[in-house]
Amino acid sequence: MTFWFQNRLRRAHPTNLLMMSYLAAIAVGTAALMMPGATVKGYIGVIDALFTATSAVCVTGLIVVDTGTYFTPLGQGVILFLIQIGGLGIMTISVALFQVIGKRVVFQQRMAMQEVFSHTPREDIYHLIRSVLYFTFAVETAGAVVLFVHWQPVYPVSEALYKAVFHSVSAFCNAGFSQFSNNLMADQASVMLNMTVCALIILGGIGFPVVYELYRGVVLRESSKVSIQTKSVIAASLGLILTGVLVILISEWNLLSSMGWWKGVLTAIFQSVTCRTAGFNTVDIASLNTATLLFMMFLMLVGASPGSCGGGMKTTTFTVLTAFSWSRLMRYKCVNLFGKTVPEDTVTKSISVLVFSLAAICVAVFLILFIDPDHGGRVQGNRQFLSFLFETVSAFGTVGLSMGITSMLTPAGKLVIVGLMIVGRVGVPAFTYIVAGGEATKGVRYAEENMMIG
Amino acid sequence: MTFWFQNRLRRAHPTNLLMMSYLAAIAVGTAALMMPGATVKGYIGVIDALFTATSAVCVTGLIVVDTGTYFTPLGQGVILFLIQIGGLGIMTISVALFQVIGKRVVFQQRMAMQEVFSHTPREDIYHLIRSVLYFTFAVETAGAVVLFVHWQPVYPVSEALYKAVFHSVSAFCNAGFSQFSNNLMADQASVMLNMTVCALIILGGIGFPVVYELYRGVVLRESSKVSIQTKSVIAASLGLILTGVLVILISEWNLLSSMGWWKGVLTAIFQSVTCRTAGFNTVDIASLNTATLLFMMFLMLVGASPGSCGGGMKTTTFTVLTAFSWSRLMRYKCVNLFGKTVPEDTVTKSISVLVFSLAAICVAVFLILFIDPDHGGRVQGNRQFLSFLFETVSAFGTVGLSMGITSMLTPAGKLVIVGLMIVGRVGVPAFTYIVAGGEATKGVRYAEENMMIG
Ligand SMILES: [K+]
Ligand SMILES: [K+]
Repeated sequence: MTFWFQNRLRRAHPTNLLMMSYLAAIAVGTAALMMPGATVKGYIGVIDALFTATSAVCVTGLIVVDTGTYFTPLGQGVILFLIQIGGLGIMTISVALFQVIGKRVVFQQRMAMQEVFSHTPREDIYHLIRSVLYFTFAVETAGAVVLFVHWQPVYPVSEALYKAVFHSVSAFCNAGFSQFSNNLMADQASVMLNMTVCALIILGGIGFPVVYELYRGVVLRESSKVSIQTKSVIAASLGLILTGVLVILISEWNLLSSMGWWKGVLTAIFQSVTCRTAGFNTVDIASLNTATLLFMMFLMLVGASPGSCGGGMKTTTFTVLTAFSWSRLMRYKCVNLFGKTVPEDTVTKSISVLVFSLAAICVAVFLILFIDPDHGGRVQGNRQFLSFLFETVSAFGTVGLSMGITSMLTPAGKLVIVGLMIVGRVGVPAFTYIVAGGEATKGVRYAEENMMIG
Repeated sequence: MTFWFQNRLRRAHPTNLLMMSYLAAIAVGTAALMMPGATVKGYIGVIDALFTATSAVCVTGLIVVDTGTYFTPLGQGVILFLIQIGGLGIMTISVALFQVIGKRVVFQQRMAMQEVFSHTPREDIYHLIRSVLYFTFAVETAGAVVLFVHWQPVYPVSEALYKAVFHSVSAFCNAGFSQFSNNLMADQASVMLNMTVCALIILGGIGFPVVYELYRGVVLRESSKVSIQTKSVIAASLGLILTGVLVILISEWNLLSSMGWWKGVLTAIFQSVTCRTAGFNTVDIASLNTATLLFMMFLMLVGASPGSCGGGMKTTTFTVLTAFSWSRLMRYKCVNLFGKTVPEDTVTKSISVLVFSLAAICVAVFLILFIDPDHGGRVQGNRQFLSFLFETVSAFGTVGLSMGITSMLTPAGKLVIVGLMIVGRVGVPAFTYIVAGGEATKGVRYAEENMMIG
């Protein structure tokens, strides 16, 4: 039996392993949250436990019950652990465990990892994993120290420490879970908290490959060549953050100017950074203008950078799609970025990710509304469709921002969101792997025949 | 001066000619609608006149004033004329005019026409245009006769005749303009009207190339080969209509079952057919469920078939995108349809049209909401974002269905919709032409470098 299982595991497709790992973590997490000691009341419904566990493992941050008051410190610890596992990626963790206990990594798992670090195939995979772990814990510790200093005057030492660790991990993993009922709105005006959380989000969301390359190039001066991946990630991140700040500032001028100009700018910066894909908030999302929310949905859809804790379509996909559109408009024969040509296959991959993402979001919104024509049963109010669309994009991009309808969803609606969170977290890389992981050699080539388009 | 102008015209790019023709028709139409005799009050604001003229020329059917009561019969005649011009395509008309008055078609115009009928490049362009005109007037006459028989018992002869001609042309051109204040809701239960209008819409929206091929193949038995374009159009049209009927029936079961089953089914069929891109309605659109409206937006986006009066992304684009997604999922090396391989360029064209369409719609919604953060100024109610999104998709797909907010838009909002109607009507073919009209030979090919996607 054990042999049979090991055999199956060895032959399993990397994407299946990835998917199974996540599902297993969600199942264990659901069970752990249902322990009587995890909740203050000693009880949580299975769908709410499943929702919370999925949201934590997928580092989404959507919540159906208030993390700080519904769960005991133990329950919050379970969530923290799930976030950390989910953020680092179960594959990374499991490879690291193999490494720690001295066993050889099975070949299939090596393959999946090399897919993750495909840009540096010559590097030793163990070395990379170790670097990921060192980097993660170093940044999280630094973040926790600053946050501890920030909260230490307000809370008892142990509580301040727990909050500091929880929020540092949650921010670095781009999870967006908070122990405060109104997320980070109470600290809206704190420059220290805003900047620390922003730094954690950016370091956690920019992707380890970029950090690694910059470290080797700038600190160690080992290499002066910067890959187009790093250039794309930095250009897209900077561009999206700045555009976001501008749009939010103009669109929410009434709200932000009433705060005083530097608090307003701070809030705009924070909300722009957190939108792709951390999901903290220092303002009430439901109170924002529709135009702002629409632009935030765009940011949520683009998401973080590849090889990071964040979700969404990824900044590189966005860069390639932009370069593709430009090349078609200019009738260029290939898609170029920073003086390099992007391979045809990579362009196709990006387009597939776009089509897949849009299809997943549309199907999910349609399902939620179709299952329950009364619009989620209990959700009324004047922007219900927008609330559902926002919720769905947020779940797919593993962002976790919400206009406040999550807990009002029907059980069926919650299950759709659970599915979408998994699709957004595991589906995108799995889909990318399936779509263009190997060479497309199957299928027949027939005689060509043209059609009219558009 | 005349010589200079002729010279410019001869050297103009076909897409520029297309765009200029439409803009000229809109300008003339706006002026005509502002004639004192065109409106009952003798006056219409320039923005409303521009909106109406654009909506007519682009065969969209969105209205800011009630066609039947705001305009005199003369004004309605102007609208009818603009619809007919827009539906046939100004290029077709102008080529036909050249033909009728015995002049040679200038080379540039021939090129643009051959783009339209690119699947049969060997056919004589004059012959094709003549066939288009014969076909159009034959179908419109037949439709008018049936509609006259239908309305003749209710209205005086001349009025019934005017209504019959107006609605026949409006239906065949997929315009969706009606002389009745509540569109076709009064005739909700009439099998004769429903079936006639559906037939007109389908014949006008399926595209002349398909009609021509079926005529040659089935009636004349000249050729037994059916192109993949015709197969795609028929498969997609049938599939979309049937899926639409099913979704509307299930999603609106409460409403439809209260009508009695055959009236309910008739209404579902009509609404499914009219959604892509005619834009008539026999039920109040604003009263439909959100899930229904979401699916209708999908249908509106897909739109009619190429070489027709209709708008949207076109059914062939949808078919190629579906085949593309399937081929990527199955890792096939090429995109196949009905035992033929779709050329790489055509696939890229489809993807470009998708990206272009989504970008245009998103930018337009964002602009409307951004210009006026109070959401169109006067639009309140519980589904305002949905109303705006629906309106925008409808304008882009030249559909003309509305949740009733068109006349409540601010002047700036109306201008955005005017722009979007033009982009939806002229922009899609122009964009397609620019993107892949000729061979992409410009630009440099650099060394390839890969990136992580998704
Ligand atoms: K998140
Ligand atoms: K229309």
